[in-house]
Amino acid sequence: MSWNNIVTDILKVDYPIIQAPMLGVSTPEMAAAVSNAGGLGSLSVGGLSPAATRQLIHKTKSLTEKPFAVNLFAHQIPAYTEDDLEPMRTLLLQLANKRGYDLTGADLANFRFYNHLNQIDILIEEKISLVSFTFGCLDSGSIQALKQNACTLIGTATCVEEALFLQQQNIDMIVVQGIEAGGHRGTFLEDMPLPQVGLFSLLPQVKNAVRIPCIAAGGINSAETIKAAFELGAGGVQVGTAFIGTKESQAIASYKAKLNKAKDTDTTLTKAFSGRWARGIRNEMMHEIEQAGIHIPSYPLQNSLTATLRKLAQQNNDSEYTSLWAGQSAGKTGLMHTKEVFRNLVEQYEALYR
Amino acid sequence: MSWNNIVTDILKVDYPIIQAPMLGVSTPEMAAAVSNAGGLGSLSVGGLSPAATRQLIHKTKSLTEKPFAVNLFAHQIPAYTEDDLEPMRTLLLQLANKRGYDLTGADLANFRFYNHLNQIDILIEEKISLVSFTFGCLDSGSIQALKQNACTLIGTATCVEEALFLQQQNIDMIVVQGIEAGGHRGTFLEDMPLPQVGLFSLLPQVKNAVRIPCIAAGGINSAETIKAAFELGAGGVQVGTAFIGTKESQAIASYKAKLNKAKDTDTTLTKAFSGRWARGIRNEMMHEIEQAGIHIPSYPLQNSLTATLRKLAQQNNDSEYTSLWAGQSAGKTGLMHTKEVFRNLVEQYEALYR
Repeated sequence: MSWNNIVTDILKVDYPIIQAPMLGVSTPEMAAAVSNAGGLGSLSVGGLSPAATRQLIHKTKSLTEKPFAVNLFAHQIPAYTEDDLEPMRTLLLQLANKRGYDLTGADLANFRFYNHLNQIDILIEEKISLVSFTFGCLDSGSIQALKQNACTLIGTATCVEEALFLQQQNIDMIVVQGIEAGGHRGTFLEDMPLPQVGLFSLLPQVKNAVRIPCIAAGGINSAETIKAAFELGAGGVQVGTAFIGTKESQAIASYKAKLNKAKDTDTTLTKAFSGRWARGIRNEMMHEIEQAGIHIPSYPLQNSLTATLRKLAQQNNDSEYTSLWAGQSAGKTGLMHTKEVFRNLVEQYEALYR
Repeated sequence: MSWNNIVTDILKVDYPIIQAPMLGVSTPEMAAAVSNAGGLGSLSVGGLSPAATRQLIHKTKSLTEKPFAVNLFAHQIPAYTEDDLEPMRTLLLQLANKRGYDLTGADLANFRFYNHLNQIDILIEEKISLVSFTFGCLDSGSIQALKQNACTLIGTATCVEEALFLQQQNIDMIVVQGIEAGGHRGTFLEDMPLPQVGLFSLLPQVKNAVRIPCIAAGGINSAETIKAAFELGAGGVQVGTAFIGTKESQAIASYKAKLNKAKDTDTTLTKAFSGRWARGIRNEMMHEIEQAGIHIPSYPLQNSLTATLRKLAQQNNDSEYTSLWAGQSAGKTGLMHTKEVFRNLVEQYEALYR
């Protein structure tokens, strides 16, 4: 049986299976393992500094000679004053204190923010051939520059209107993110309520609306879900949560343990950690921030404000005070190597459908 | 190609395709048309009086000799005082006035409520062989009585825990309702946040958890979505929104028109119309009730309170002041006969997958 289709042709991979970029969870090791196994690994560099971006690219290149995608955040950086952040800063200091973490001297002000505009030149210099992005659409200058350097562009849409927008901007492929997906919503058209469309409804409607290939994201964790995504018109699939439990994942042990026993209803959408809607397993930090009833600064402000507390929690293997991104098909992920998770998907698919 | 499987065997139908019960939209004519075409039609009698229940059953029987399901609401009737309803009553009178409807003398008090307990005897007397239900699980006495009369029972679940509960109560089959589905959520376990699981995540997890057949509901409107549901483990599918636009539907013309041009993001969950979470196209009545910020009485109280205003709106073909239940795959439904919608699904499926 052949997996070849337009997506494998464009991505130059054996299998149209993409490892979802998961900033803070995925690693160069994870991306390289998936690319080496014949899929497409994704390196997350969204919002990172130019130096960190280049370093992670070099690291990934040292682990694979296969193509991998570099994933950017195409968000705007909002105007703000330090005063705007004060109520949340106060709350976070209270929460840290309550939980026994010392934020004295922690960096909760004067942030330096980056977005894709600080990274495009590096991607071109590093001859990255596949660039994916979320939280928006790259600006036309960046699109043009990357295209002139033979780069394939993969956007993220959470509704038909966003997919049409990406196609109009000359993007080559669309990750269609169902409401099932873990982590941040890719939503970027802001004059509407947050799209919360299930993949069963979203994928066929996007497929019917656009000419470019669609990658299904959200709930994909088995041969059957891959097959169903193909039936609904996907040319490929993106798998995230199933890789969070792997040895190549940065997720702390207590996060992996919660993920492994997560039920279908254990996740929810929240803005508490980052200021952008994202799906994760409910925990105390989410609850405390939401029920405080104070304004949550928008992304990336809130993300930077909570970063130190999340980092301290991670150092203490404390799953109550860091984000536990997960999709609605978390559960029973086990602790395997990335390569095994990937091979299991491929082999189970081939066993069932060849 | 044969459609035969455990679901067609149990339901004694040619195709494992169920027309979703849609109280206020579906009709005896719709149910009979689907049953006559080889699927399973569903007659909605949830919350209706014994007399109305019997009359609708007789009507449906007069239109088909095939089996059809009778759908009950298995909710509890909450204790309340007339005073509890006063703020909402006042708001509804204001809204009616604003919209130009006269509620003087309308029946907004002293309601008489029914649930499945008032209907079981009738179903047995009428020798109904298929009983489906939602909003809860039938009580054990009713289950026993129906089973003793050779009745097959079909419950509704919106999460794994509800599915396991239904199986434990000796229910024969489960409609697995993804977040995509239009109309009321079948949710009935109340010690958790509202389950909002996409069908892509929900169906495989329910399938893996239970031994009894699963029917996929939410977003099913094409050969491809039927096939995908089978791949995810469904033994059958339930189709709702695709039948709302038919000639056998009770939906008013302006509702059908809105449905026909609905986008993937046009629906939302609301308690405004009935006091229970349900998915429908956004409109003015939904908005006004939600933004008023007053307590929405629980089902069926709110449902009875809004009934007169909704009825007046329907008489005036006013889609802004009645519920516009629809799933996330509304759109392009057209105005056909129920039979045509059903035959199109079957024929397109057979053309693609035989």
